[in-house]
Amino acid sequence: MSDTDKARIVAALRAELSARGLDAFILPRYDAHQAEYVAPHDERLAYVTGFTGSAGLAIVTMNTVALFVDGHYVVQATNQCPPSLVTHHHLHNDPPEFWVADVAQTGWRIGFDPMHIPSALFDRFGQALGQGELVAVESNPVDAIWADQPEPPLGQADALPVQISGQSAREKIDKLAGDLRASGAELCVETQPDNIAWLLNVRGADVAFNPVANSFALIDAAGQVLWFVASQKLSRDVTDFLPEAVRICAPDEFLPKLDERTRPGLSVLFDPEFSPVAVRLAIEKAGGAALPQANLLTARKAHKNPVELAGMRTCHIEDGIAWVEFCAWLNDTVSHRGSDGNPVTEREAEQAMLRFRQAQPGFLEPSFNPISAADGNAAMCHYATQADNAVPIRTDGTYLLDSGGQYVTGTTDATRSFAFGTQRPDGYDRAYTVVFKAFHAIATLRFPSGTQGHHIDAICRRPLWDFGLDYDHGTGHGVGHRLSVHEHPQRIGKPYNPVDLAPGMILSLEPGYYEQDRFGIRIENLFEVVLDADGFMAFSNLTWCPIQTAMLVPEMLSEAERDWLNAYHADVLEHLSPGLSPGALAWAKAACAPI
Amino acid sequence: MSDTDKARIVAALRAELSARGLDAFILPRYDAHQAEYVAPHDERLAYVTGFTGSAGLAIVTMNTVALFVDGHYVVQATNQCPPSLVTHHHLHNDPPEFWVADVAQTGWRIGFDPMHIPSALFDRFGQALGQGELVAVESNPVDAIWADQPEPPLGQADALPVQISGQSAREKIDKLAGDLRASGAELCVETQPDNIAWLLNVRGADVAFNPVANSFALIDAAGQVLWFVASQKLSRDVTDFLPEAVRICAPDEFLPKLDERTRPGLSVLFDPEFSPVAVRLAIEKAGGAALPQANLLTARKAHKNPVELAGMRTCHIEDGIAWVEFCAWLNDTVSHRGSDGNPVTEREAEQAMLRFRQAQPGFLEPSFNPISAADGNAAMCHYATQADNAVPIRTDGTYLLDSGGQYVTGTTDATRSFAFGTQRPDGYDRAYTVVFKAFHAIATLRFPSGTQGHHIDAICRRPLWDFGLDYDHGTGHGVGHRLSVHEHPQRIGKPYNPVDLAPGMILSLEPGYYEQDRFGIRIENLFEVVLDADGFMAFSNLTWCPIQTAMLVPEMLSEAERDWLNAYHADVLEHLSPGLSPGALAWAKAACAPI
Repeated sequence: MSDTDKARIVAALRAELSARGLDAFILPRYDAHQAEYVAPHDERLAYVTGFTGSAGLAIVTMNTVALFVDGHYVVQATNQCPPSLVTHHHLHNDPPEFWVADVAQTGWRIGFDPMHIPSALFDRFGQALGQGELVAVESNPVDAIWADQPEPPLGQADALPVQISGQSAREKIDKLAGDLRASGAELCVETQPDNIAWLLNVRGADVAFNPVANSFALIDAAGQVLWFVASQKLSRDVTDFLPEAVRICAPDEFLPKLDERTRPGLSVLFDPEFSPVAVRLAIEKAGGAALPQANLLTARKAHKNPVELAGMRTCHIEDGIAWVEFCAWLNDTVSHRGSDGNPVTEREAEQAMLRFRQAQPGFLEPSFNPISAADGNAAMCHYATQADNAVPIRTDGTYLLDSGGQYVTGTTDATRSFAFGTQRPDGYDRAYTVVFKAFHAIATLRFPSGTQGHHIDAICRRPLWDFGLDYDHGTGHGVGHRLSVHEHPQRIGKPYNPVDLAPGMILSLEPGYYEQDRFGIRIENLFEVVLDADGFMAFSNLTWCPIQTAMLVPEMLSEAERDWLNAYHADVLEHLSPGLSPGALAWAKAACAPI
Repeated sequence: MSDTDKARIVAALRAELSARGLDAFILPRYDAHQAEYVAPHDERLAYVTGFTGSAGLAIVTMNTVALFVDGHYVVQATNQCPPSLVTHHHLHNDPPEFWVADVAQTGWRIGFDPMHIPSALFDRFGQALGQGELVAVESNPVDAIWADQPEPPLGQADALPVQISGQSAREKIDKLAGDLRASGAELCVETQPDNIAWLLNVRGADVAFNPVANSFALIDAAGQVLWFVASQKLSRDVTDFLPEAVRICAPDEFLPKLDERTRPGLSVLFDPEFSPVAVRLAIEKAGGAALPQANLLTARKAHKNPVELAGMRTCHIEDGIAWVEFCAWLNDTVSHRGSDGNPVTEREAEQAMLRFRQAQPGFLEPSFNPISAADGNAAMCHYATQADNAVPIRTDGTYLLDSGGQYVTGTTDATRSFAFGTQRPDGYDRAYTVVFKAFHAIATLRFPSGTQGHHIDAICRRPLWDFGLDYDHGTGHGVGHRLSVHEHPQRIGKPYNPVDLAPGMILSLEPGYYEQDRFGIRIENLFEVVLDADGFMAFSNLTWCPIQTAMLVPEMLSEAERDWLNAYHADVLEHLSPGLSPGALAWAKAACAPI
């Protein structure tokens, strides 16, 4: 889109705001569900500003479009949004609530869509604001000016059989109702589609990568569920399969029904970080007691049951085979075609990985947009190749692939870093070895109950710190079971995260190291938290794919690190050999040779 | 005191409460300054309940004395307070504010001394309470019934010369005034005596171990200071030395002056965790804006200046000499007298350590009540010997000494664990070796800016976790410069602590391992945070005393651990040899022999 077109859109939005008597509008990237991915229908921030990243918010006034993005997206935002149209801000260091508090004049009416602003964010705006008033809009002003706005998604939702989910929706609903009664509440509002997908054993297709149906739910302490979902999405299969306690309602009945069910004095749970503020306002308007609490389903969903865990293990065998087939192809093709002057491109490698996954019977779709990045591109943590990408993977260069899949029985996510020839950038091997040491340090950790993600993040970083290195991202994220590849609430990182790590949780472990414009290195496997001896816990590996050994500096490795890697590689061969093609098996045997 | 006497005191207190129309009284261990140590005058909790620990609170009703103590004091509280008089509760798991909210009836008047309850705790009581009302007493009802209550302390306060403090009080006051102006406040309330001692370069003698003068201060943005301190405490030296900007006022003028100086609308900083709620109430009553904020002086004081750091290094040489003289004496005397059937006792060892410290020219007094504990006693983290103590330190037993001193130029704190013969309890050597590995792991850490204590606690625990072991206390505490041996705000432990570790901070590092009734092991040195290469930080050792090597299991040590210990021991000899007696030098040479 040209800058003129962008300017035209902003002008139209301002006219719309003026017509509604608004002086400004808060435009988050969130839709009503506050998830990482949104449907094209909900890409309002991208439509108005051109910024396509997954974490951002704009405030449109009559003079300014102030764009606030997460630190990882600063370069991308600058490229996508010219300073002639947009002023750039850091979402966390220069928060939008303080910015708008500074610019707002007496009498300003600042519009917001109460279905798109979470309750906690609304409070932060309210507390910061001195002059001016926050005004909930009845309909979204961006929708009013967006002529060719895509329709809301109607992806088909299917039932997930209990052989895969491990627990019937009926049982899950009963447990949730018990949790509700225990917490003294009578009603619980659910606005996160992955929680609803888990509760009802349903998988949808409304947004990319995350197999969810955008919808809302009200669950009461008697175990009755109202599910607000467009009925066109539901296959016959789903409606047959849902327990009787679940009643289907149209999505636009969500707030009216919440109002109707909230008798004065009724205690209603809502998640302040994820529920749109419209939920809290509706509860309060109806005279209910709105109880802010991290969603009960979020915690239940995080503790995988034995069938879910078995499914995760199964799909990781399929994914491992795809990875090894890809690695064998990549190593062969890069050197072969590199010498022919027709090098493999980043885009082509990404597509090859997809083909190898598609050859697996259980594969459904990618679990996120892969990062297929050669040389300096790998130093950008959010790098995505474009359709016309022709960046070569060079024989004497380096390459990183971060990629995962949705499978019938679970979800995968892994990263490997590659080098092909004997020439590597100065410092690459040392850094690669240190990243491996970091990966080994966290992967072999045993920890007592009560340990939380922020307690152990530094265990992973320490080998890097010893060499004066570090990485500017988290160490690990939760992963859903055939659901979101980034799943709350557990997380390993520096920020405080008050969630005890517990058996049955799935986490990635993914240390890295990045040198701008030169190279990026990351090693990532998924792990299951398991009970170990002495009442301690440990990480049990799920991901099977050789960790390239050519770049390891032998004298930097301890005996324990060497032994662990050799044992891991023996396990890789044992798990994958039966499913590999002869060529890939030969490559794997060489790649897994003891060091 | 007999149980009958205790019952009589509680009955007298109840009569006093009744006479004042109160149904209950909240009785914390805190005095007006919320420090770890209080003067005998302020031991109200011990007077009423018999509990002498440093962290507790009682609620006295007409039926019950509910005593709430920190987990570490559960055994001690049970021993000191019979269940016939007191019900026992856990201060954190069963908080007093919820307990009183449960028992309070409609119309209850619950008394509290607003000078003894910090603002944040008052808020927690207020939020929890449904029925009943909190009533600030005008005078403390315990004082009214305590016939032989000791007088408030009048310890002499002396000036700390700038050669030791490194910065004049004038400069410190000017910097604080600048901080105040930067934070938009016009007045700052200071109720923590160690902050006042640091600001004014004064050291007092009102409580045991911490050389502070109990007092209050008001500092304004123009750099004027009102110091509320009993003038009898001030030596001529101090009054001559104080800058003109400091005016001495009587302690009972504190609240009236705060009221007088708080014009309507004036912004006044107070620390909600440490200021008595009387401070906030006074500010609000006078129409001021009470701004809750961690005290500005607490942060300034934590970053030691070069002269303070040099003083810490100097006093650690003296303290190291005392430690080595003690170790030599202990090893010799335990084996010698053990075979004579007249073993050294815990109490005797503690007194010997004091004598060796007193032989050092710079020594002033102990910096805390030492823990001198043989065998199973060492498993109690708060163990204190009594005057009539005769617990022997056995040749085939184990022993732990945690002990420190106040010196002219600084403060020390160290712990060593000892075994004397060839016989040790099963598992002791393995555990001792693991504790050493933990100590080595944290002592050698390098970390980037932005690292906080809760991030690196697990770095120290990991070697224990590897063996299924752990310890139930923090890994490190801040230490004052010739001030409190436990100093806020930095701390290394599991709880969230949002304070960046920074060069010039002093911390203890003290992993341990404890087996109930069998033994306790701890190794503790003090360290200074220093800038290291690559913009990273590291811990620089302050404490010089051999770490016993006889109990180390050689095959459990890595080369890096062995090298580090040998280098540390070479440094111990280099620093201490010139000051040691011939006998101690011979012992030290053997103790420091490379392994």
